[in-house]
Amino acid sequence: MTYELYYWPHIQGRGEFIRLALEEGGAEYVDVARLPESEGGGRAAVSRVLEGAAGGRMPFAPPILKAGKLLLSQTANILHYLGPRLDLVPDGEAARLWAHQLQLTLTDLVVEAHDTHHPIAKSLYYEDQKPEALRRAADFRTLRLPKFLGYFERVLAANPAGDRYLVGRSVTYADLSLFQVIAGLNFAFPRAMAAMARRHPKLAALHQRVEARPRIAAYLASSRRIPFNERGIFRRYPELDGA
Amino acid sequence: MTYELYYWPHIQGRGEFIRLALEEGGAEYVDVARLPESEGGGRAAVSRVLEGAAGGRMPFAPPILKAGKLLLSQTANILHYLGPRLDLVPDGEAARLWAHQLQLTLTDLVVEAHDTHHPIAKSLYYEDQKPEALRRAADFRTLRLPKFLGYFERVLAANPAGDRYLVGRSVTYADLSLFQVIAGLNFAFPRAMAAMARRHPKLAALHQRVEARPRIAAYLASSRRIPFNERGIFRRYPELDGA
Repeated sequence: MTYELYYWPHIQGRGEFIRLALEEGGAEYVDVARLPESEGGGRAAVSRVLEGAAGGRMPFAPPILKAGKLLLSQTANILHYLGPRLDLVPDGEAARLWAHQLQLTLTDLVVEAHDTHHPIAKSLYYEDQKPEALRRAADFRTLRLPKFLGYFERVLAANPAGDRYLVGRSVTYADLSLFQVIAGLNFAFPRAMAAMARRHPKLAALHQRVEARPRIAAYLASSRRIPFNERGIFRRYPELDGA
Repeated sequence: MTYELYYWPHIQGRGEFIRLALEEGGAEYVDVARLPESEGGGRAAVSRVLEGAAGGRMPFAPPILKAGKLLLSQTANILHYLGPRLDLVPDGEAARLWAHQLQLTLTDLVVEAHDTHHPIAKSLYYEDQKPEALRRAADFRTLRLPKFLGYFERVLAANPAGDRYLVGRSVTYADLSLFQVIAGLNFAFPRAMAAMARRHPKLAALHQRVEARPRIAAYLASSRRIPFNERGIFRRYPELDGA
């Protein structure tokens, strides 16, 4: 089956968690909105599927995955579906619930990372909520980020199959997502992340381990990987990094 | 099996979505932290399970459900597990992914409702972030709330099995959660919700339909239902309601 991914074509955003799973899983897929507009791509492709799905099981927002007749949205839901099909989660209900639970905790962290630059409204520019962003980012750096990173470091340490991956002895979609979150945080908060690096050696090692996996390395080096920028979830605003 | 729920004993919070499913499903369960401290209850019960789980598949935060040997957290993950066991989701992967997807969208709405009174930091009091809360709440009332409510109204209208419930012809955990969200929004934003009521008749009908279900009605009338208050997700601060 060829999967179709619908996500905004100019940012990594939440779509990137799906892209990484599809790439590592060796799936056949089309990143539809990244096709030229003349071939049905562009932002209009996302809008079309959002509107065209009215009357069915309609998504609230992208990312959206078409898998045969299924139209799925919500990042963690899509990964929960793809995991067994792409061999990115162990067999067994307990392990799958655990991987999904970790993914949902990463989802929470992603919302909080996003809201450092948009604490008031998605509908406003960063510049229109900068004083509030400075306050929220300070709380994020000093309290929330250490809490989340400390948690994932402990989860790695506590994995009975070893600290190479979060769940069992093989890579799961949750590891790919954790890689992406660390990459994003390193981009957005280089100062804060550097200050915390020594306390989270297992996270740094996981980041490098995933980055070096052949399919991920090939993807990251390709034009399919959109660079980080100041329109996505993770943005480099030095003032929010306490610089 | 007797389930054990661990959640803060003085608020509905995210635990309430689990409580409603357990009640409607007729499950045997203990709401552990609501027991007297002399019987192992109180907030300390939650802290004990958070800390005691270190070394295993540890939760990041409550609600936490103990189901035999399983220790689950993340509200939507717990409901995804309970759904089939309590007959609160239809058979079949497609329907279960759809119910879960709706639950995850409700999760997003709950975060945004919470952040109206805590846009800067969970670690600060409302009074310490009130100007920011006023701005965020105005955006929530005028843009985000109508977007979410309009979406769920359309989902009800588009259900091929009828507009009584979100998925299929019977109640699911997603309906119970939508009931809870509407109840909370009615409590926190009575003015904004009244102004929008006419545009969302199916949501209002669903709220009443769930409220009148015998097990839910009995639960709501019991002392097991904690009243809404100004410590939970949904808080009645008239200034945030545009009053």
